[in-house]
Amino acid sequence: MEKKRSNLVTRVLTAIVAIPLLLAIIFMAPPWGTFLLVAFAGMASVWEYCSITYGDENRLAKVVSVLVAAGISAVLYFVSEWFVEATAVAFLLIFIVFLFSYDDQERVSHQIGSSITGILYGGVVLTTLSLLVRDAGIAGPYWILMAMGVTWGSDTGAYFAGRAFGKHKLYEAVSPNKTIEGSLGGIAASIGFGFLFNYLFSFDAAWTSLEVWQVLVMAIPANILAQLGDLSESLIKRAHGIKDSGNILPGHGGMLDRIDGLIFASPWFYIFFTHFVL
Amino acid sequence: MEKKRSNLVTRVLTAIVAIPLLLAIIFMAPPWGTFLLVAFAGMASVWEYCSITYGDENRLAKVVSVLVAAGISAVLYFVSEWFVEATAVAFLLIFIVFLFSYDDQERVSHQIGSSITGILYGGVVLTTLSLLVRDAGIAGPYWILMAMGVTWGSDTGAYFAGRAFGKHKLYEAVSPNKTIEGSLGGIAASIGFGFLFNYLFSFDAAWTSLEVWQVLVMAIPANILAQLGDLSESLIKRAHGIKDSGNILPGHGGMLDRIDGLIFASPWFYIFFTHFVL
Repeated sequence: MEKKRSNLVTRVLTAIVAIPLLLAIIFMAPPWGTFLLVAFAGMASVWEYCSITYGDENRLAKVVSVLVAAGISAVLYFVSEWFVEATAVAFLLIFIVFLFSYDDQERVSHQIGSSITGILYGGVVLTTLSLLVRDAGIAGPYWILMAMGVTWGSDTGAYFAGRAFGKHKLYEAVSPNKTIEGSLGGIAASIGFGFLFNYLFSFDAAWTSLEVWQVLVMAIPANILAQLGDLSESLIKRAHGIKDSGNILPGHGGMLDRIDGLIFASPWFYIFFTHFVL
Repeated sequence: MEKKRSNLVTRVLTAIVAIPLLLAIIFMAPPWGTFLLVAFAGMASVWEYCSITYGDENRLAKVVSVLVAAGISAVLYFVSEWFVEATAVAFLLIFIVFLFSYDDQERVSHQIGSSITGILYGGVVLTTLSLLVRDAGIAGPYWILMAMGVTWGSDTGAYFAGRAFGKHKLYEAVSPNKTIEGSLGGIAASIGFGFLFNYLFSFDAAWTSLEVWQVLVMAIPANILAQLGDLSESLIKRAHGIKDSGNILPGHGGMLDRIDGLIFASPWFYIFFTHFVL
């Protein structure tokens, strides 16, 4: 009990520090400030993904993976026309680093696969969120908040709906506490946050108000992807018998635990914005 | 002995059928004929990569990986501006397929990593060769031959130089038969083939003759990458205790055995062409 309470205090204190810091960067820094924020979260995610999947082995390769992810992320944001070449170079680099630095030959193909997956995870898929901010111009900061609201709101909705009505397990083998009722509550919350934010943002002319259908077309797939992202990370953690992805955010576990849903939903926000809003 | 001889016959027969067929497609079909050829080789490579790294498990996931690779390869060739989104979607698809179709939870993270690595390997990295053909216009067929000559010539040069002078092991833990002398012979052969092809091609006005420095800047890095690609595949096969990557080409082993070097060198040919020739 004592432990639990102090954990809650830590959790709240972290949020009190982190949220204003996030908002300050998103609204007051130029777009590349948000890029740096997203890239930092991506790098932490790559580190955690590699740590989960290959334990404490080959630290050098983990560091290289994080740096390669940062590089590919920067190419994607600043010189997108070089993204194909950057992807190929990243791929070759990982193989070459492992070719000369593996510590266990039998595990090396697993580690190469994890590094490449981690790099796409944190360095490419999440970076689509930066692209959204880059391409949305003055509405960019609002789009980041919308993405966060729709995906994080889902967790909250799922938690309360699950507590109140949860009866039928969603996918017990992967995530035993989740229920179908919770999952539906998550979708409802995402839609609700989508409408709420759309309303609040419309007080600033930078935001182009969305129609009802646009909010639904944005929020429902984003929510489903976020839930799939959450389950996917649970699957990976469970495969390796690990509970938290890390401890970078005191009281909140690892970065990946926090943003696994957001990572999966990011490409959809970007695709939605470029096709249904622009 | 009997077995060996019949294997040589099979090998020669395969070459007699395959080489004219390759040349016919490369020179007589439109550029997307070469794209199909490269995409087919890429799909076979993905299949073999997955088969090596996750054995006979989860056939469905292997089929999906091959199809996703074909899809991403087609997007890259025909609608390059969608490549970022395609990469993200491919990534999500693989996770989602595995989320609902794994057969062994402890091995699932290895299989996800292998699928994603295989998709980049055969579906993205090798596809840079198609981009070269697409962007080189009427010189495209010659560029394909140049890439093949420089990388396959290397194997031949390495084989004979290694037999004649081979004393010092190159990297015994990964590929016990390779020697430093063979490796240098491979570089020499690549350079030689580069000059030879450049001379022969110059009889056709479609080919822009390369300067001496251009041949060297093209052939040396391409050769080193090809040798690293060959070693990388050896590492993966050795990690899983496998000798041939497959048996798609009778007498020649698997597709990957044949094109592992070409895959690694492909991005360099593309980068070289777009920056030092165009």
